[in-house]
Amino acid sequence: MKGIGIAVLGYGRIGRIHADNVRAFPGAHLVAVSDPELGAGLQPPADVPWSKEAGSIIADPAVEAVMICTPTPTHAALVEAAASAGKHVFCEKPLDLDPAVAARTVRAAERAGVFLQIGFNRRFDPSFRRVRDAVQSGEIGALCMLRVVSRDPAPPPIEYVRSSGGLFLDMMIHDFDMVRFVSGQEVEEVQAFGAVHIDPRIGEAGDVDTAVVSLRLASGALATIENSRRAVYGYDQRLEAFGVDGAIEAGNRTASTTWLKRAEGVRSESPLHFFTERYEVAYRLELAAFVETIRNGSEPECNGRDALPPLAIAVAARRSLESGRPEPVLAAGAE
Amino acid sequence: MKGIGIAVLGYGRIGRIHADNVRAFPGAHLVAVSDPELGAGLQPPADVPWSKEAGSIIADPAVEAVMICTPTPTHAALVEAAASAGKHVFCEKPLDLDPAVAARTVRAAERAGVFLQIGFNRRFDPSFRRVRDAVQSGEIGALCMLRVVSRDPAPPPIEYVRSSGGLFLDMMIHDFDMVRFVSGQEVEEVQAFGAVHIDPRIGEAGDVDTAVVSLRLASGALATIENSRRAVYGYDQRLEAFGVDGAIEAGNRTASTTWLKRAEGVRSESPLHFFTERYEVAYRLELAAFVETIRNGSEPECNGRDALPPLAIAVAARRSLESGRPEPVLAAGAE
Amino acid sequence: MKGIGIAVLGYGRIGRIHADNVRAFPGAHLVAVSDPELGAGLQPPADVPWSKEAGSIIADPAVEAVMICTPTPTHAALVEAAASAGKHVFCEKPLDLDPAVAARTVRAAERAGVFLQIGFNRRFDPSFRRVRDAVQSGEIGALCMLRVVSRDPAPPPIEYVRSSGGLFLDMMIHDFDMVRFVSGQEVEEVQAFGAVHIDPRIGEAGDVDTAVVSLRLASGALATIENSRRAVYGYDQRLEAFGVDGAIEAGNRTASTTWLKRAEGVRSESPLHFFTERYEVAYRLELAAFVETIRNGSEPECNGRDALPPLAIAVAARRSLESGRPEPVLAAGAE
Amino acid sequence: MKGIGIAVLGYGRIGRIHADNVRAFPGAHLVAVSDPELGAGLQPPADVPWSKEAGSIIADPAVEAVMICTPTPTHAALVEAAASAGKHVFCEKPLDLDPAVAARTVRAAERAGVFLQIGFNRRFDPSFRRVRDAVQSGEIGALCMLRVVSRDPAPPPIEYVRSSGGLFLDMMIHDFDMVRFVSGQEVEEVQAFGAVHIDPRIGEAGDVDTAVVSLRLASGALATIENSRRAVYGYDQRLEAFGVDGAIEAGNRTASTTWLKRAEGVRSESPLHFFTERYEVAYRLELAAFVETIRNGSEPECNGRDALPPLAIAVAARRSLESGRPEPVLAAGAE
Repeated sequence: MKGIGIAVLGYGRIGRIHADNVRAFPGAHLVAVSDPELGAGLQPPADVPWSKEAGSIIADPAVEAVMICTPTPTHAALVEAAASAGKHVFCEKPLDLDPAVAARTVRAAERAGVFLQIGFNRRFDPSFRRVRDAVQSGEIGALCMLRVVSRDPAPPPIEYVRSSGGLFLDMMIHDFDMVRFVSGQEVEEVQAFGAVHIDPRIGEAGDVDTAVVSLRLASGALATIENSRRAVYGYDQRLEAFGVDGAIEAGNRTASTTWLKRAEGVRSESPLHFFTERYEVAYRLELAAFVETIRNGSEPECNGRDALPPLAIAVAARRSLESGRPEPVLAAGAE
Repeated sequence: MKGIGIAVLGYGRIGRIHADNVRAFPGAHLVAVSDPELGAGLQPPADVPWSKEAGSIIADPAVEAVMICTPTPTHAALVEAAASAGKHVFCEKPLDLDPAVAARTVRAAERAGVFLQIGFNRRFDPSFRRVRDAVQSGEIGALCMLRVVSRDPAPPPIEYVRSSGGLFLDMMIHDFDMVRFVSGQEVEEVQAFGAVHIDPRIGEAGDVDTAVVSLRLASGALATIENSRRAVYGYDQRLEAFGVDGAIEAGNRTASTTWLKRAEGVRSESPLHFFTERYEVAYRLELAAFVETIRNGSEPECNGRDALPPLAIAVAARRSLESGRPEPVLAAGAE
Repeated sequence: MKGIGIAVLGYGRIGRIHADNVRAFPGAHLVAVSDPELGAGLQPPADVPWSKEAGSIIADPAVEAVMICTPTPTHAALVEAAASAGKHVFCEKPLDLDPAVAARTVRAAERAGVFLQIGFNRRFDPSFRRVRDAVQSGEIGALCMLRVVSRDPAPPPIEYVRSSGGLFLDMMIHDFDMVRFVSGQEVEEVQAFGAVHIDPRIGEAGDVDTAVVSLRLASGALATIENSRRAVYGYDQRLEAFGVDGAIEAGNRTASTTWLKRAEGVRSESPLHFFTERYEVAYRLELAAFVETIRNGSEPECNGRDALPPLAIAVAARRSLESGRPEPVLAAGAE
Repeated sequence: MKGIGIAVLGYGRIGRIHADNVRAFPGAHLVAVSDPELGAGLQPPADVPWSKEAGSIIADPAVEAVMICTPTPTHAALVEAAASAGKHVFCEKPLDLDPAVAARTVRAAERAGVFLQIGFNRRFDPSFRRVRDAVQSGEIGALCMLRVVSRDPAPPPIEYVRSSGGLFLDMMIHDFDMVRFVSGQEVEEVQAFGAVHIDPRIGEAGDVDTAVVSLRLASGALATIENSRRAVYGYDQRLEAFGVDGAIEAGNRTASTTWLKRAEGVRSESPLHFFTERYEVAYRLELAAFVETIRNGSEPECNGRDALPPLAIAVAARRSLESGRPEPVLAAGAE
């Protein structure tokens, strides 16, 4: 009756979201959480055991699966530790900034025979999934063009920009995954244009805050991704797929469906402010899929191998930004 | 850490919704459920004690509050039993088809000093609440007109129609509450037009399946309510308030935000099919408000006294349908 | 090649709209205009003959048809004068505030064997016509409910209110026509609720500025009309028809299709401000229909007999406002 | 009173649109039309003189201005002929497929001291103009990204594709102009991706039918243009501008504002089918601007010099498609 026993490693913002979802999910229960800051900067949970370090929790026989929500540099080691302890793993993206390390980690999980699900939460957004279904079922015919818009409401701290691997690796990686998810295709070539419009310190850190990337997919379909570190009107997350027999668009979600009409104009609601609100349902469905995978013994829809191509595309996009020309996406080498 | 102990009385469709929400809610826990059909037509829950009768569960000291989700004719007695046992009560609407019985029940809860919250779930819909806030904060100025659209996707079984008190009591009662909730005013006069367009058996049962009701509020503002037992395109639940300084509308919710464009036209999603989907969030927020009330010792926003005016309006509307003229709404007599 | 020769009687705002449309219409030409104010308060046209009085213009053999755009009290006499001169007539609504006079005028035109088209311009709005087509073709099944929203951006001068016959005759008469036009049915009973929310002087003049009217149609379908003398957000003209197999709504038109998204929210355009903009296309299509009628010798789609029921409904609505109960719509007596 | 005398050269589809607009325009009159096919394949107009050749019409002293609506290869010679006869010129785009010829023609008109307006009709679409105004007034702050979607409902005849200069010159040239119009900036670099998804014969003719082009503007702002020769759901013409202080989008126009809701879903209208409907208002406003230019002696908002950069961008885009890398836009050389 208690369902799958899950531990959450890393108890920051995203860790607490996952922990709360596990608490509320009928087919799972939260066994423990770990975070080096617990008892220091972070308030420990009152309902479950906690620890400053992950090792003992991974070893706990009541823990069947872990959800890794720690900083990126720790992902690979934690995945490997959990896998060798025979625990199923959900890991937040990216697996690692280095594609080779990521590939090695995927192989480690495969050898250990545990499931590894990657936290590409947008795949579980009902609107984006509807677009994917329309594309892959043939409702709009062969795909010609795909557009992904992804704009954050505000830039991250400048320190984060310095260590995150930059816009292509920390932000657009989600969009690279969406292109693969919606199209069901691999990306072969990428051309990146970038600029600094929002904050000159981002430029000084060697990154861009505004980027338009064009991608050529295996079938010859074309895709564009637009990223901005700041949209003053809120978190802007949209998709548009165009095919030979039609098109489908997914818009933003709002807190209410109201329209306010006054002398100064007609107003609808702004998009939900940020990812915790916009993807609230997606996070729950993502957990449900992970539990389902463990329960049914079926491979995750978004498994470790899906972690690698977005990394390879991000690397190619960065290369294109520097070379000023289209660059091929090189094989990720997960074999 | 376990939060408020809650029992759910009645484990049919709406009972299971509330029970699941209690299970998932961090500040509450499900102590037990009761339903005469448990072990017979109904599958008992595996995670909590259950009983065919409510009495022992009400008496259980671990139960601080009950949620009454049984058929309407049992509501009054269960509220009174729980109240005299000192338990806080959440009761699905309507308290009773007879306004006098309902008023007596409200007084019983008040004398017992327990909180009584009425299950007018739509008050917790974020879009409708936004309309209420716009009206009551003065954003659209003094209210002139209010429109409530409420159409079910399909009519209930004809047996239900025969015993429910009819469209005004089983369906439009929600809309009468919305008029009070949004306007913050009492209804003084009501004119009902009705017709049978959907199913002649509803007419044979002495009811209508289509109704347009006009209401005059205390301030002189006018309201209309449109009900239909069947909208083939789904559950249609909308509000529109018009004031001297503006207007605000609330539309339907959809499963996704997509638009599909094909040769035959441009399609958006149909409204969410029925109340379990449309008001999923509202049910959760309603429970949160109930728990908050108990925890803080503050009167529920929607308490027993709010149960009475919608009944009185429904009775007046039925009278108007028969007399063919506007009828005054008579005092509910909860004093 | 010059097409039908048309004179415009009355050269105020609406007269100039029609005159400009005649000027631009390939199948017609403007022969002359008349208005008692020409040469005084009104600037005469430079391109066609003009006169202060209508008689000589009606008599001009080059004039095959007249468009009567003068104040309401002069309509009946001008229609009769033009008809007895054998000229086809387009007359702005209402024919006359007195249903008996209007009926007599209709008979006069019929006896004279000329066409008489009534200026119910909204019938030519492409969106409203689409709703009519959906209703009458059976696309939404048998009609259950119809809603007409009609709100002006600002009230007329108080002197106009005093002489216009009041809100039901000068404003809602359009909506009564829309109910007949969309439903293809006659109205049998009407219940009016009214209030003064916008300007107390309107109340002092014996009128209301806010009204909600419910109507029962011949088939048992129900309709509501909402009127306000002032919507601060612009001219609000919408329709919604609900039937057993679906529904159709027509919204407002805007000057552009843009959405502006800024920190303070997401804005769409306000409705086009007033009837000259909103019904610009309708006025042109209305003229085209009139020219077509004359050219083909076919009865106008909206002829003199259509002028009478809206008057009868308006009279019944006024009666209902005074009696406080539903009133039957009495036969207009055009036989 | 007759206004500016205008002749229309070329009486095919677009010529007839302009001729009808001149006929209806209060400040202008149609003096004559010419087309080699008149009296042969084309029905001559009944209301004005016509000729198979343009020369005599250009020479007619009643002709103050000409509108050139002939096939592209004849544009340059006709502009020069009209200019040397001292007539103002409106010329459909493109001036010529060869940028050098186009530049020479512009200089010829300038030397002759006549106005030359280029038929970039989309500049007069009220929605696109609203976007331009928002960008240039600073309403959305400094421009970061601009997106132009332009999809035709069906591909042109394959013979047209063979002689038109290809997608970049016959179709996307409008979008290159929109980028300049909206941004108020010049394009510096362009990267074209293209594919053949619609009709293999287009590929055999050496062209693409699907293209995504990225452009870098002088300020560092980035733009994308998406073209398809066929959108099965109709003529898709949209704009989206994103700036540091907000964004603005312009959507398609529809024949009505209706929503149809039935069991199979909720439908809005498809976009207006093609340019004659979508840009009906734009064509009228474009003529009004031309007449205004002549009347006021003020330079056209969209003059000959505006014809050149879109040609230069199209040439660069074609070059990029072939080189597979971003290409600079070379100076047009109109000096």
